[in-house]
Amino acid sequence: MKRICIIGVGSIGSLYAAHLARVAEVWAFVRRPEHARAINEQGIRLTGTHEFHARPRASCQPTEMPQFDLGIVCCKATQTEEAVRPVAHLFAQGAVLSLQNGLGSEEVIHAVTGGQVIRGTTFVSGTRHSDTHVQLELDTEAWVGPYEPSGTPFSKVKEAAELIVAGGLKAVALEDARPAQWTKLIFNASVNSAAALTELVHSEHYAREEKFDDLGHLLHDLIKEGQSVAAGLGITLRDDPWEMNKIGARTDHPPSMLYDIRNKLKTEVDYLGGAIAREAHRAGLPAPLHTALYRLIRGKESSWTYAGKKHEVAR
Amino acid sequence: MKRICIIGVGSIGSLYAAHLARVAEVWAFVRRPEHARAINEQGIRLTGTHEFHARPRASCQPTEMPQFDLGIVCCKATQTEEAVRPVAHLFAQGAVLSLQNGLGSEEVIHAVTGGQVIRGTTFVSGTRHSDTHVQLELDTEAWVGPYEPSGTPFSKVKEAAELIVAGGLKAVALEDARPAQWTKLIFNASVNSAAALTELVHSEHYAREEKFDDLGHLLHDLIKEGQSVAAGLGITLRDDPWEMNKIGARTDHPPSMLYDIRNKLKTEVDYLGGAIAREAHRAGLPAPLHTALYRLIRGKESSWTYAGKKHEVAR
Repeated sequence: MKRICIIGVGSIGSLYAAHLARVAEVWAFVRRPEHARAINEQGIRLTGTHEFHARPRASCQPTEMPQFDLGIVCCKATQTEEAVRPVAHLFAQGAVLSLQNGLGSEEVIHAVTGGQVIRGTTFVSGTRHSDTHVQLELDTEAWVGPYEPSGTPFSKVKEAAELIVAGGLKAVALEDARPAQWTKLIFNASVNSAAALTELVHSEHYAREEKFDDLGHLLHDLIKEGQSVAAGLGITLRDDPWEMNKIGARTDHPPSMLYDIRNKLKTEVDYLGGAIAREAHRAGLPAPLHTALYRLIRGKESSWTYAGKKHEVAR
Repeated sequence: MKRICIIGVGSIGSLYAAHLARVAEVWAFVRRPEHARAINEQGIRLTGTHEFHARPRASCQPTEMPQFDLGIVCCKATQTEEAVRPVAHLFAQGAVLSLQNGLGSEEVIHAVTGGQVIRGTTFVSGTRHSDTHVQLELDTEAWVGPYEPSGTPFSKVKEAAELIVAGGLKAVALEDARPAQWTKLIFNASVNSAAALTELVHSEHYAREEKFDDLGHLLHDLIKEGQSVAAGLGITLRDDPWEMNKIGARTDHPPSMLYDIRNKLKTEVDYLGGAIAREAHRAGLPAPLHTALYRLIRGKESSWTYAGKKHEVAR
């Protein structure tokens, strides 16, 4: 039986831990001792699209954990290094799969483990009701492929995908997962950057292109800019992010960066719009809009702690 | 003695009303009856850089007001039409000078009065302590010139500037005031758009250009874009808005749009970044950054009233 470690056990991590525990020895690496205790005592109950009860193990002590065949990182992109470092030595033989938002976590994981890394993209979504109860909402394919610089053999990628499928979720192993990753990245980066700055949920405003000042023009421009960066990097996208945006704009879904901004938490912008800006900059490709919004969001984050000289806000 | 009407009697309007009342018959056209009564009973007391007491008249009744030689509009740009319309007929012989923020109010005034309009730009600033007490902080030159489409003769512009100077403030009449207006517009639009979206006061962040994600890069790009739009329109700027930004970034001054955003008030973006975007669009010139920020600020304004379908903000 394969051994899998889930790193970051929020809603996505809980979903994967529960499904995979049906076909593998799964350890959930968590930060809070009471989180570990709750899972060890009660297991994880799954409701929603899939309904079952699973019994992964859980621990916050790397010293009591074994070597693993596979790691799956599901934490917020901003917490990758902190989350992976304590267990990095447990993947001497195993690969580590990132199922996180955006682009760039693979690089961080690779720097920390020095081993094989798999890039993954998923739209799976769920709601975490408690440490031991998660509801599956949207079960879609995870697209997984080698993180090229780590030299992960494709057989390892296929093995990871087969384990996920055996556990009851969807996954496809791809020789090159960058087209899938960039498709989601461009969609996600454009919507999240606009949401962080306007504080609008993913509403009809994002697709409206009638008047000159309509926000939909900007979304369209951000998406086109992302597509042209991808093309410049030799990546052919899997789907049209603008069509994805038009569908999303009917949902009034709150993008994750909107949650961060409302709660004054450091956003994932480095891994979303910031990743597009940075990759474009590295390759000498223009990305003025993603770069501008990246800098604004950084400025917004700074505003939470900047005291400055005191002034009356007067006219 | 010339007759002057001040339209919009906030801090700037109070400063001009008080100074001009020393050399002309000045009427302050106000909205609140108690504002008119207070000025009529107590006059306006000036403190700060200049200290004196002046006795303009005030009224909220256009029917009791005479014909004027000059109007000076000092209200928020978003309120121009509403403020000018009731007294528009009182300028059959007189010109109307806009001392408002940004670009575009002249067009609104001209549409409402059908008469001669003067474009003006001022950095004068003050704090309004009450309806009858205003403190002068920064006394700088007002740059005034004809609003070209209204065919205002230059003699009228000179007369307006001479009245202001006689009253004790600074003013210069220019055959073409657009270089001065665009200089301030580019500075003001760039700083205010960034402030509206980051909610940072005009701090050191606006001039910092070390790391890739520093906000100063964006300010520099916004200013360069504004300069290139001005150049495309044949306007040679009077000063370098980037140098103005570097000085301003030491002050921690709260830009006016930051006040609006914090108080969920419609901003002046139509007359600042939106004016640059719109003028560029009309002339077929590129202004992607000002246009992007304009659309984001419009989106932000929409977020205050958009209810949408209810969702839990979850991850």
